Amino acid sequence: MKFGGTSMAGTERIRRVANIVRAQAAGGNEVAVVVSAMAGETDRLVNFCREANALYDPAEYDVVVSSGEQVTSGLLALTLQSLGCKARSWLGWQIPVRTVESHAKARIDTIDAPRMIESMEAGEIAVVPGFQGLSEEGRVATLGRGGSDTSAVAVAAAVGADRCDIYTDVDGVYTTDPRIVAKARKLKAVTYEEMLELASVGAKVLQTRSVGLAMKEGVRLQVLSSFVGDDAISADELPGTMIVSDEEMDELVEKGLMERRHVTGIAHDKNEAKIILTRVPDKPGAVAHIFEPLADASINVDMIIQNVGRDKGETDVTFTVPQADLARAQAMLEDKRDIIGFNRIITDSKIAKISVVGVGMKSHAGVASTMFRSLSDRGINIQAISTSEIKVSVMIDEDETELAVRVLHTAYGLDAED
Amino acid sequence: MKFGGTSMAGTERIRRVANIVRAQAAGGNEVAVVVSAMAGETDRLVNFCREANALYDPAEYDVVVSSGEQVTSGLLALTLQSLGCKARSWLGWQIPVRTVESHAKARIDTIDAPRMIESMEAGEIAVVPGFQGLSEEGRVATLGRGGSDTSAVAVAAAVGADRCDIYTDVDGVYTTDPRIVAKARKLKAVTYEEMLELASVGAKVLQTRSVGLAMKEGVRLQVLSSFVGDDAISADELPGTMIVSDEEMDELVEKGLMERRHVTGIAHDKNEAKIILTRVPDKPGAVAHIFEPLADASINVDMIIQNVGRDKGETDVTFTVPQADLARAQAMLEDKRDIIGFNRIITDSKIAKISVVGVGMKSHAGVASTMFRSLSDRGINIQAISTSEIKVSVMIDEDETELAVRVLHTAYGLDAED
Repeated sequence: MKFGGTSMAGTERIRRVANIVRAQAAGGNEVAVVVSAMAGETDRLVNFCREANALYDPAEYDVVVSSGEQVTSGLLALTLQSLGCKARSWLGWQIPVRTVESHAKARIDTIDAPRMIESMEAGEIAVVPGFQGLSEEGRVATLGRGGSDTSAVAVAAAVGADRCDIYTDVDGVYTTDPRIVAKARKLKAVTYEEMLELASVGAKVLQTRSVGLAMKEGVRLQVLSSFVGDDAISADELPGTMIVSDEEMDELVEKGLMERRHVTGIAHDKNEAKIILTRVPDKPGAVAHIFEPLADASINVDMIIQNVGRDKGETDVTFTVPQADLARAQAMLEDKRDIIGFNRIITDSKIAKISVVGVGMKSHAGVASTMFRSLSDRGINIQAISTSEIKVSVMIDEDETELAVRVLHTAYGLDAED
Repeated sequence: MKFGGTSMAGTERIRRVANIVRAQAAGGNEVAVVVSAMAGETDRLVNFCREANALYDPAEYDVVVSSGEQVTSGLLALTLQSLGCKARSWLGWQIPVRTVESHAKARIDTIDAPRMIESMEAGEIAVVPGFQGLSEEGRVATLGRGGSDTSAVAVAAAVGADRCDIYTDVDGVYTTDPRIVAKARKLKAVTYEEMLELASVGAKVLQTRSVGLAMKEGVRLQVLSSFVGDDAISADELPGTMIVSDEEMDELVEKGLMERRHVTGIAHDKNEAKIILTRVPDKPGAVAHIFEPLADASINVDMIIQNVGRDKGETDVTFTVPQADLARAQAMLEDKRDIIGFNRIITDSKIAKISVVGVGMKSHAGVASTMFRSLSDRGINIQAISTSEIKVSVMIDEDETELAVRVLHTAYGLDAED
């Protein structure tokens, strides 16, 4: 079980969490709980670090910011004890959660937890602070913001959990953002790949890395809300959304628990920006000059279109980058102007990426054409397209985001019945 | 160097501390710094624990409350780095600071710190969170409130420090409380034993346990203020108060740096309460029935007087306990009423203990009689007396505390000259 910062914000909410955990333990489960820091606490600690040293040493940053989860793990253990449960906290260095790579964005390498497993087998609930581990040098390491989801999946894999329940402030994964489409439906299940595509295009329910790890380790994930009630929740009731393998999804369909659709959900993302380089020489290697330096700087280029050249031997190149990296990308390209040989840089942050996602489209043609026709019928101009095996994305004007999501939600038959 | 919570309260004050530390390092010293949590932070964390579980598990309490010092140790390391110093934090479990006995009031057993010493020899300032260590079971243990002074002395002993400077919000040890006697003088030096007596009777400059450890380990302590300036401070300048062995005190006197007095200081303590049990049977073993249960409950009985019996075979027994334990002591005595066989319990919290302290009185009679005569001359009634080799204490009415302190400060010639 994993609880986020909103669920852990203050001792009263922690008591609510403890009741949910107790219900699972009372149902005969051995339970490990991974917790985030109280909402706002990590920001407070990060600010202290920035005030202390603008160019902070990530090893010391880790010492400071990891304390937030240390506090909530101790408090949840205490609260569980007050409810009559046996419970204890296991800090990252105690389990240990061994990490590799750099501080402040470490990656979990191995969790070998014989003592914790033994304690769980003896009926003690294990409470684990998320986001933290032990570096190769024996120091505190953190996984980067949002890392507690990944901690939860890694702990679930380490203890051989039947299920990893991620409690959050939404009660599951929806066919689309319910704030945009009132008729959005909660999905009983999605596949890892669908979740990865949904997460990467703006459905911020789970940290992308945690979903990738769950897929790799075969951990069955469930997303559900910690604000729905204190009753014991069993896997069969599926109150949230299960995130499962393709095989398990097939079984759910066969059993009639899920219906097979071509499109599972519609996601949108307003955090990208468009860059157009005009009059780039249309010759071999030119495009590499553009994208290699961006890749070296870890700037993630998503959609790319090479327009038809206006003059012989020249072409416009359009692509998208995260808005947060736009200024850096622009400066880098200006720097390479002579090597790349473009004429102008045009940038536009007022774009949105709309994606239709579904494993069903692997075996069904026509999903993309339905998308293009539906948008075109409503006069929405498609500026770029990208696809993967289970996703079609288009770039449109940001002002048309909500309209596009609603049109597509209806077009693919996702609207809930009244 | 050790800095308390007031000195560490916020990033701006931590920068001030970092400047003081840098000056010491720049003066050619290898430096380890022990830090407290930000003022108020430990209280905040203790409250969380109480809210989570009124009867909290001290092992989990330790996980929660130790985070305060973890945060300040990381922040001081970051701030030192921003000033161009090499610095790193060493958490209790990393050094490790091995502790024994129970959680929440652990005792430091050994500090074996070869890696930290190596790092200090390489010019890196070691920043150590006070108050925390590693339990025998490999968990976080804390030393009890005020334990950071003890951490500092233990670290000083472990690294073979020339001096352990305790920076606090007062600038040294005074002949008495300067808020009561304007002519109180700051002492250049006191002996360990004097400091122990002064600390135990209410001069709350240093935690008693830290002074005892310094005496045992031969660590030269200095108490000084972190609010006097950022300049490098050398031992010879003695800007605060040195706490030294009897031998070193003799040397200081021989060199004319200190004058030998019979009485070094006057302390007062309003935190005791008086209990009178009337008409206790005056027979062997009766007193044991009173004091054994109190000792078993760790209630510290200080002064004891057995009054002259009013009737044959009966006597009144008067003694003092800490005010915080009064209710518990009273309940416990009521419980044993039949066994002890007293008539009434009379309690009084409106008492004060006034003590004159000085190694000089070992070789000089007449200190006690000066005390009794001076108080009696001003009409102050002495309710009880207790003595040690270097201390005479009397119990008086709390309302007469300040008067008594002023009278004695003058009587022993401690008033500063104008």
